[in-house]
Amino acid sequence: MTSCSSRSLWLLKMSVLITGLGIVLFMFRSVPLQTKLSSLSPWYPAPDVQTLKLLPEERLRNLFSYDGIWLFPKNQCKCEDSKWRGGYNFQEGYGQSDLPAVKARRQAEFEHFQRREGLPRPPPLLAPPNLPFGYPVHGVEVMPLHTIPIPGLQFDGPDAPTYKVTLTASLGTLNTLADIPDNVVQGRGQKQLTISTSDRKLLKFILQHVTYTSTVYQHHGVDMVSLESNSSVAKFPVTIRHPVIPKLYDPGPERQLRNLVTIATKTFLRPHKFKIMLQSIREFYPDLTVIVADDSNKPLKIEDDHVEYYTMPFGKGWFAGRNLAISQVTTKYVLWVDDDFLFNSKTKIEVLVDVLEKTELDVVGGSVLGNTFQFKLLLEQGESGDCLHRRWGSFQPLDGFPSCVVTSGVVNFFLAHTEQLRRVGFDPRLQRVAHSEFFIDGLGSLLVGSCPEVIIGHQSQTPLKDLELASLEKSYSTYRANTNAQIQFKLALHYFKNHLQCST
Amino acid sequence: MTSCSSRSLWLLKMSVLITGLGIVLFMFRSVPLQTKLSSLSPWYPAPDVQTLKLLPEERLRNLFSYDGIWLFPKNQCKCEDSKWRGGYNFQEGYGQSDLPAVKARRQAEFEHFQRREGLPRPPPLLAPPNLPFGYPVHGVEVMPLHTIPIPGLQFDGPDAPTYKVTLTASLGTLNTLADIPDNVVQGRGQKQLTISTSDRKLLKFILQHVTYTSTVYQHHGVDMVSLESNSSVAKFPVTIRHPVIPKLYDPGPERQLRNLVTIATKTFLRPHKFKIMLQSIREFYPDLTVIVADDSNKPLKIEDDHVEYYTMPFGKGWFAGRNLAISQVTTKYVLWVDDDFLFNSKTKIEVLVDVLEKTELDVVGGSVLGNTFQFKLLLEQGESGDCLHRRWGSFQPLDGFPSCVVTSGVVNFFLAHTEQLRRVGFDPRLQRVAHSEFFIDGLGSLLVGSCPEVIIGHQSQTPLKDLELASLEKSYSTYRANTNAQIQFKLALHYFKNHLQCST
Repeated sequence: MTSCSSRSLWLLKMSVLITGLGIVLFMFRSVPLQTKLSSLSPWYPAPDVQTLKLLPEERLRNLFSYDGIWLFPKNQCKCEDSKWRGGYNFQEGYGQSDLPAVKARRQAEFEHFQRREGLPRPPPLLAPPNLPFGYPVHGVEVMPLHTIPIPGLQFDGPDAPTYKVTLTASLGTLNTLADIPDNVVQGRGQKQLTISTSDRKLLKFILQHVTYTSTVYQHHGVDMVSLESNSSVAKFPVTIRHPVIPKLYDPGPERQLRNLVTIATKTFLRPHKFKIMLQSIREFYPDLTVIVADDSNKPLKIEDDHVEYYTMPFGKGWFAGRNLAISQVTTKYVLWVDDDFLFNSKTKIEVLVDVLEKTELDVVGGSVLGNTFQFKLLLEQGESGDCLHRRWGSFQPLDGFPSCVVTSGVVNFFLAHTEQLRRVGFDPRLQRVAHSEFFIDGLGSLLVGSCPEVIIGHQSQTPLKDLELASLEKSYSTYRANTNAQIQFKLALHYFKNHLQCST
Repeated sequence: MTSCSSRSLWLLKMSVLITGLGIVLFMFRSVPLQTKLSSLSPWYPAPDVQTLKLLPEERLRNLFSYDGIWLFPKNQCKCEDSKWRGGYNFQEGYGQSDLPAVKARRQAEFEHFQRREGLPRPPPLLAPPNLPFGYPVHGVEVMPLHTIPIPGLQFDGPDAPTYKVTLTASLGTLNTLADIPDNVVQGRGQKQLTISTSDRKLLKFILQHVTYTSTVYQHHGVDMVSLESNSSVAKFPVTIRHPVIPKLYDPGPERQLRNLVTIATKTFLRPHKFKIMLQSIREFYPDLTVIVADDSNKPLKIEDDHVEYYTMPFGKGWFAGRNLAISQVTTKYVLWVDDDFLFNSKTKIEVLVDVLEKTELDVVGGSVLGNTFQFKLLLEQGESGDCLHRRWGSFQPLDGFPSCVVTSGVVNFFLAHTEQLRRVGFDPRLQRVAHSEFFIDGLGSLLVGSCPEVIIGHQSQTPLKDLELASLEKSYSTYRANTNAQIQFKLALHYFKNHLQCST
């Protein structure tokens, strides 16, 4: 890892870089004399024994650590020795000889991903002091091919016989709603609009009514519009964005639970487990729709009007089945349960619904016989891949629900917003035991909570008397376990798919 | 609809409102004398017969129309008479007596959606002229619980014996990397940081190294940080955002097509059609994986190592099947085909792959026997629901592919990024003929293109000799058609789910 001195260097480099940027982005108007003078400090008392230095690394580490993880500056991740610290160095999922080619492919796919997501975002625009302009900081937003008035444009420079203000766009065109002859406003409906007048009032009126028109159909783009007079330039972003259309669900006039929630599960080679769970569901929720995905060799017979049963190719796998099940849900929420759970009087789906209805959470977990499996995921972005810190527990209590918390991952018993869950989905490439993989795929997409007082039971794991079932369970267990190859595969998946470098 | 005068009024109201906002957001520092004078215009020539008025509505309509649709100002949609103009008034999907209750539920669901999406966005921040501060316009971004240096902070006000600059945050805490005694910097690690010094150089150094630390775990939030000295205040946003973790696919060392593309289709009561298509696929693509979702009454026998076959509850429906099929894809791209298509030498999947690899498109369609079914969707946002304008054709040529175009919807033969397609999905609530519904659900999520030179064939629709098959086709057709109830249902779905008011 880099030394303290070189890190402080990094910080300074960064500030310099950014200031540099500011200079690139703006030509400063000639500053008033007083400021000029003030900048040559001899005229002023020198800093009283105050030498300009930064805090030592240790101090910074104390200031900016969370759970012992230093979240500033970036790249604190030590992948080399992550193994003995209970972490993984994900590139170990590949053979040394394959790595160079894998890295090249990974980089190419990552760049394609970034291009489509509009990443990396442009560097911050820096406004210098004492600009003679008023303008929308943070910019304004326009839908593709639409027109908007640009609010807050003003010029307040020194007096002059005539004023000339020029606006320049690149992805769209500019105009003004003001009814003004063309000798005053030039370039209406073009990328550059120039206003020339001796009348401040008129200038003010025209600027108040400048419009921006998006001329290219795109879902996201940023047009840096510049506002210029003499040597002063202000820039602000016009964000072109198409809003995502809502996909709402009607809970129906009575808000019955069956119109709000569907139960989804996946089963494989243990129909008896599923049937026991279904019985327990019906004891408490007689009419909730239950969706079952089954990749066993012979299909199940189920007598239940509210069960939807899907068969898959044999052994297609755990996440493939989960993804199939959620693809069929037609209610706002979906409750995930494993096929060997057992509903009881503490399994209150209504409570979980209430939490999702009243918070911004996308997913809320309960407890399986007291096990909530809460874990936090903290991401650090790095050049050659991100670093993932995993810690047990939660971030903070959930607003309005003191007995619930906000975290990153929970146990396999949770209620989720169907649309949000589908956006992330269960990666059908994961065939065997997989759990945290889903919550890692959901990082940045799913806000997760946990409410321990909603509890579901688990069927006994004592060996069965019935020989046929016993043999089924036996063959099930042979499929369930992760082979070494499977584990290698998971490491490789995190390395390539999630663009992760290592975990701690 | 509103009259012309009242619309211009609306425009003025808006500018006033926005200027008002600016004043709320900022206390202006007392402006220099010269400017004060200049603002009382008697000193300057009065506008030469120039009265300050806005362009008449007709002029605006000409300036800001696209395809005859006036995309400024908002709310041009005339729902009352949309019917006779070939459009729909979606609330007609409900009975008059139900509407009031439906509207209330729709509003409640819409508000829940907005809350989770962080909508509506805060009004634009307006920067007044001649602020003595330098700061990041457009703000900076920080990951939850992380710390960032805030670039570009400067103070350049008039000289004074001592300088006092105060920074205030609300969602996080402030600090500085500068190693400075506490009498100079107060409130380290708190929401308010105050710098007091007589040394401009020292002030500059401290401001250069101010940091922001996010203290609450959230996926998106905006903290308006203020920078204050005497009566001058600048505000800039610190955006708290958790990046969405990538989900990349490895095309493999040889980039074989079978590692890049999966073919997905849905069949119902016409196995012969599917088998004919499968033959045609194998003629050109012997080893591509084909995923089939079938909701017929009896399962198909298929002898093909690269076909994955899924059975569903009988008649579960068209979009449910499509959603099931895409839920099982494990390649970067998925090609959608109907079960009665016919591959031929012009069905070049590679060409479509090349287009998605080299552009930002999420979906690219081909042509079914010359039919590309290109249509544009233009959204206008309104109070009580949005207005959707649908027009045939395309927006613009596709960069780098002159024979392709950018549009909103295409025919049922397209290649898509699997992850993006799953984010939108096919709504399993749509059981019968449905097509544009998918592209409407994709508005804002899927950037769609069309390349007419990639052509797929269609199986003949002449009645079959084989009696059994003929009867199958007959019963198929009875399921295919949209009943009146189905059409009502679709109107209702657009009204409630998509929060649309009407279409033209």
